[in-house]
Amino acid sequence: MSTVTSTPGPTLTPTDLGVGARLTLLPADGDLVDVLGRALATADGMRVEIGSDEVSTLVRGAEDDVLLFVHHVIAAAARVAGHVVAHVHLSRGCPGEVACGLPDDAVLAYVDAPELPATGLRAAAHWALYPLDDGRPGHPGDHMRAIEQAVAVARTRATVSSERFVTRLDGDLAEVLGAVAAGWLAAGRHVRHVVAHATVSVGSPPRR
Amino acid sequence: MSTVTSTPGPTLTPTDLGVGARLTLLPADGDLVDVLGRALATADGMRVEIGSDEVSTLVRGAEDDVLLFVHHVIAAAARVAGHVVAHVHLSRGCPGEVACGLPDDAVLAYVDAPELPATGLRAAAHWALYPLDDGRPGHPGDHMRAIEQAVAVARTRATVSSERFVTRLDGDLAEVLGAVAAGWLAAGRHVRHVVAHATVSVGSPPRR
Repeated sequence: MSTVTSTPGPTLTPTDLGVGARLTLLPADGDLVDVLGRALATADGMRVEIGSDEVSTLVRGAEDDVLLFVHHVIAAAARVAGHVVAHVHLSRGCPGEVACGLPDDAVLAYVDAPELPATGLRAAAHWALYPLDDGRPGHPGDHMRAIEQAVAVARTRATVSSERFVTRLDGDLAEVLGAVAAGWLAAGRHVRHVVAHATVSVGSPPRR
Repeated sequence: MSTVTSTPGPTLTPTDLGVGARLTLLPADGDLVDVLGRALATADGMRVEIGSDEVSTLVRGAEDDVLLFVHHVIAAAARVAGHVVAHVHLSRGCPGEVACGLPDDAVLAYVDAPELPATGLRAAAHWALYPLDDGRPGHPGDHMRAIEQAVAVARTRATVSSERFVTRLDGDLAEVLGAVAAGWLAAGRHVRHVVAHATVSVGSPPRR
């Protein structure tokens, strides 16, 4: 009987994995350009590369740096403007713009979600996670299982409730974004290409 | 030799398929509650069910009615407020809140994207499509193929360019949302559960 030894493939860096975010941020009442400019200015020196067009700001870097930046900028904008709404789009595992090629034997290193500093700002989010798992011959994908696992992880961070098409998260902004981050990275443990979308309302006045 | 006749399964209605949208809409400068209230008031009598919380408005109905409503409300808000940013989340094929059960033999009826009336409003969107195709034993999923087909369909409707994590769409708001809709419905021809996200900036002032 012969033994086949499989050599583990390369461990992928955040750059190999195409890690990054797109952030769109709007004040509920006030001037977008002013609020965004002031919020971004407070993030000088953070370890990310950014670039903006009229729709969103692209944020590139390692997982924890991207998440710390997104958290910092949303909190800063809410402190400037009171009530802000952000759309956060996190991506990992699709390094190209169109194709998503990764070596088949690549090792998906597990990355812990960073501890985001508490803000004192109340947030509510509609969160959706997309583990883009095609499966392999003899091994169908199971994106719902990865979603259920991520929701279980999110429950340890924020208040979770089910809504149509999304999971609602409530808590301090740090808890809400921490739950989004932890769910995204938990799914990325087993699935190469995982995307999360969250629309986050911060500092909304209580409903009358 | 025996012949196995397979009986086609039930043809699914929009309700069976859990068709709907979530819409978050913000003016770039102005009061959110005022703008959203005025925009929604112009949509009275449209054939959808809506319900809002502080994060988004849930829109339920048939595919064309949902898309006509989303288009109408974004255009109305841009006419009130000038520059608005919307996040549009379209879903089809996951009728439950957590589980996505559909009969295995269910027929996916093809639905054409509706003709959205031209607005004269310039729009730019960051669009992402998620065909959540797990594959089956002996038949792996191929979500990138469904995405490439949808992008080809979008090219017939709007100006398309590749960006990191998203496809950028430019044109009249009707062309941009028409491209999002047509790509979503094209992917839904072969994949049961298809989600589209688009962040759309309408009436943005030219960049200085």
